[in-house]
Amino acid sequence: MLKGRSLIEPMDLSLEELDELLNLAGKIIENPSAYADVCKGKILATLFYEPSTRTRLSFEAAMLRLGGSVMGFSSADSSSAAKGESVADTIRTIACYADIAAMRHPKEGAPMVAAMSTDMPVINGGDGGHQHPTQTLTDLLTIRTLKGRLDNFTIGLCGDLKFGRTVHSLIKALSRYDNIKFVLISPEELRIPDYIREEILIKNKIEFKEVERLENVMDELDVLYMTRVQKERFFNEADYIRLKDSYILDSEKMKSAKSDMIVLHPLPRVNEISTEIDSDPRAAYFKQAKYGMFVRMALIMELLGVEI
Amino acid sequence: MLKGRSLIEPMDLSLEELDELLNLAGKIIENPSAYADVCKGKILATLFYEPSTRTRLSFEAAMLRLGGSVMGFSSADSSSAAKGESVADTIRTIACYADIAAMRHPKEGAPMVAAMSTDMPVINGGDGGHQHPTQTLTDLLTIRTLKGRLDNFTIGLCGDLKFGRTVHSLIKALSRYDNIKFVLISPEELRIPDYIREEILIKNKIEFKEVERLENVMDELDVLYMTRVQKERFFNEADYIRLKDSYILDSEKMKSAKSDMIVLHPLPRVNEISTEIDSDPRAAYFKQAKYGMFVRMALIMELLGVEI
Amino acid sequence: MLKGRSLIEPMDLSLEELDELLNLAGKIIENPSAYADVCKGKILATLFYEPSTRTRLSFEAAMLRLGGSVMGFSSADSSSAAKGESVADTIRTIACYADIAAMRHPKEGAPMVAAMSTDMPVINGGDGGHQHPTQTLTDLLTIRTLKGRLDNFTIGLCGDLKFGRTVHSLIKALSRYDNIKFVLISPEELRIPDYIREEILIKNKIEFKEVERLENVMDELDVLYMTRVQKERFFNEADYIRLKDSYILDSEKMKSAKSDMIVLHPLPRVNEISTEIDSDPRAAYFKQAKYGMFVRMALIMELLGVEI
Repeated sequence: MLKGRSLIEPMDLSLEELDELLNLAGKIIENPSAYADVCKGKILATLFYEPSTRTRLSFEAAMLRLGGSVMGFSSADSSSAAKGESVADTIRTIACYADIAAMRHPKEGAPMVAAMSTDMPVINGGDGGHQHPTQTLTDLLTIRTLKGRLDNFTIGLCGDLKFGRTVHSLIKALSRYDNIKFVLISPEELRIPDYIREEILIKNKIEFKEVERLENVMDELDVLYMTRVQKERFFNEADYIRLKDSYILDSEKMKSAKSDMIVLHPLPRVNEISTEIDSDPRAAYFKQAKYGMFVRMALIMELLGVEI
Repeated sequence: MLKGRSLIEPMDLSLEELDELLNLAGKIIENPSAYADVCKGKILATLFYEPSTRTRLSFEAAMLRLGGSVMGFSSADSSSAAKGESVADTIRTIACYADIAAMRHPKEGAPMVAAMSTDMPVINGGDGGHQHPTQTLTDLLTIRTLKGRLDNFTIGLCGDLKFGRTVHSLIKALSRYDNIKFVLISPEELRIPDYIREEILIKNKIEFKEVERLENVMDELDVLYMTRVQKERFFNEADYIRLKDSYILDSEKMKSAKSDMIVLHPLPRVNEISTEIDSDPRAAYFKQAKYGMFVRMALIMELLGVEI
Repeated sequence: MLKGRSLIEPMDLSLEELDELLNLAGKIIENPSAYADVCKGKILATLFYEPSTRTRLSFEAAMLRLGGSVMGFSSADSSSAAKGESVADTIRTIACYADIAAMRHPKEGAPMVAAMSTDMPVINGGDGGHQHPTQTLTDLLTIRTLKGRLDNFTIGLCGDLKFGRTVHSLIKALSRYDNIKFVLISPEELRIPDYIREEILIKNKIEFKEVERLENVMDELDVLYMTRVQKERFFNEADYIRLKDSYILDSEKMKSAKSDMIVLHPLPRVNEISTEIDSDPRAAYFKQAKYGMFVRMALIMELLGVEI
């Protein structure tokens, strides 16, 4: 039972709590209308100190689909932050009005400070490097729903593995399950940080390999998680030209993939997945966006202690 | 039945479909409380890539008055557009969260692209030159309600007839009905474009005349549709000074108008209608704003396939 | 009965009307769930021409907690104001969509103009010098609820008493009750304006004194109302250095206060109340924020003429 808690870090939930949450999300997916009024009379505050339409609307839709209401702001300009108020004071005031809050903040740790300053549940909707636990929950729910399990599969993580927090969180989360094999696909300069390699993968004796080209490993993967590689991240132009096509998923590369592989992406994408893939049944990134809403519905219910 | 369709161009509806829509709007006007819950559990996304308070709030009020919910953004700053996401991807994501969307976009064609990228109904809330079909629907509902018919009348269109898309759409829409006579009142340099004159009016043998001064034709009109004439549109200062008062509606001009003439304006107005007219029973522009909400209620119901 | 009226100035309500309003707020506090649906189907428009998250969200939460809906804008950028529309025209249009409006506007008198232009109730959410009657109502409800009465007590008002409209409004409001004694604590250059001293206090033979140091009068107070003193307001640096600590409330000063004194602050605070006070049971400023929502619930109900 998560009632009254906050969710700040992806690893804030035990395996059991996570399981309970994903089970609830699964039930909502099966019969959403049964949950259409469970949060009637409850208010979600979306406190977005920097804009993120996708994340904000996912939270808002989740609350509205539970019959609750939403209020808040979508950029720091329209908040009291300009008047020099502390995050702690803001959240204490918001707690007078709302029942639960989702916060995105450019400063790392702000949602944590908020959570510690109030009894109202606070959900981290992204801070600093844009760590946000609900993206990881979304990824887990998507894999579990589409693959039927969270263990015993090979996942390829492709793109910028150095700066991509989404990827780091997902590796940590999946490393708690049995027999997950990681294939880490990135240019040399964008490999996963040492602390992930040593502290998570090697320490826990998890099977993984690091490769430079996506096309060479396509046929091994049960799940392919794509992220963007920005040109600015490369050390030199030559490397970029040599490698850039390796990190763009197209029909050609999909030919060698398993027939039941699924392709995920946290969105928004720019060009790292060719739109020709969109109609491939293995393309699951828009389903993933939908699951993002469902897992937030489950999360809001759990943190509010609302039951059907 | 419009269920599942989008509305991008004012002429997207057949006369029969339009009739059905206006009939429904008429029923809502008579008994709004009967429709207060028909969209319970449905979500409208208002995707405004450029601000338009009036249009956005009209859509939002329409959905709220049907018992539905609303979410979205009111300027591009707070949207994901800044991250380089395509309109197609944005709408596919929004379709995971919402049931219907109203989109305003500075780029002509964007709502069309959006509509083609999703099964969710998309309503064009204005693109590029601010063509938006719900303004035309508003105008039609207003005339039909206040005059009792959409045929057999003389309508004066006054102001900037060259750049005013609202006027172009209204001419096209009304030209489908019997015995509408158009009186086109504008300075020489702001006359209706040739394609409207040739392709719509002359081709369909519709009676019309073009005049320069409003005061000369007031007594002929059943409906007067005012729009603003911006000083910058005139070719020379002398013309502007000579004509500007002709395009300002005041009590003096109203004296020669029929007692049951109605004055419409898409709003916002600046000074083209003197506020002294506001209390004249023939001034119908605020009623028109109200009908704008009612026609959007009907439209949302039709596109969602919701019935009472 | 306030049905159909607007609230522009704090003194717009008679003592009887105020009493009725505060009584209703009291009932809502006792049993909020009894009021959870009374505004179902009603729409509040929040028209914020300048940002004020706290005030806006307080209004929105109030309406949502009554079962109503909310729409609006949170800064002038996303409003039609940019197109040169008058406040009168805007409010007439909004009145087509909404049932009641809360307006904040940088120009003094704008909410008054709005109220005079429509039959829809308009609540002043702050104009110009940020006079807003709902802050005064909040202060009154807080004192009445926590002290059990609005007469027979000593209130200290501390900080910038010259420019702080909140303080002026509260003095005027409390001067209508019996046996209120005012202790006015401020630096010489920030004393209350003459018109408050002469027209309100002296004219009505109300007991008051003006002092420079908070620490000297702490033990006399039943209520302490803190406001911020900005450095820029001082005439000279020496005065600022000599006095600044006098206007910061800390644990040390609280030692000499009565055990049942309450500390109020309109928020946001910067450093004028040390956070070490927050856990002191006499610190009532976050309760005050909560009462602000309750009094707005009562106000919306009264102006809409909604009954339980």
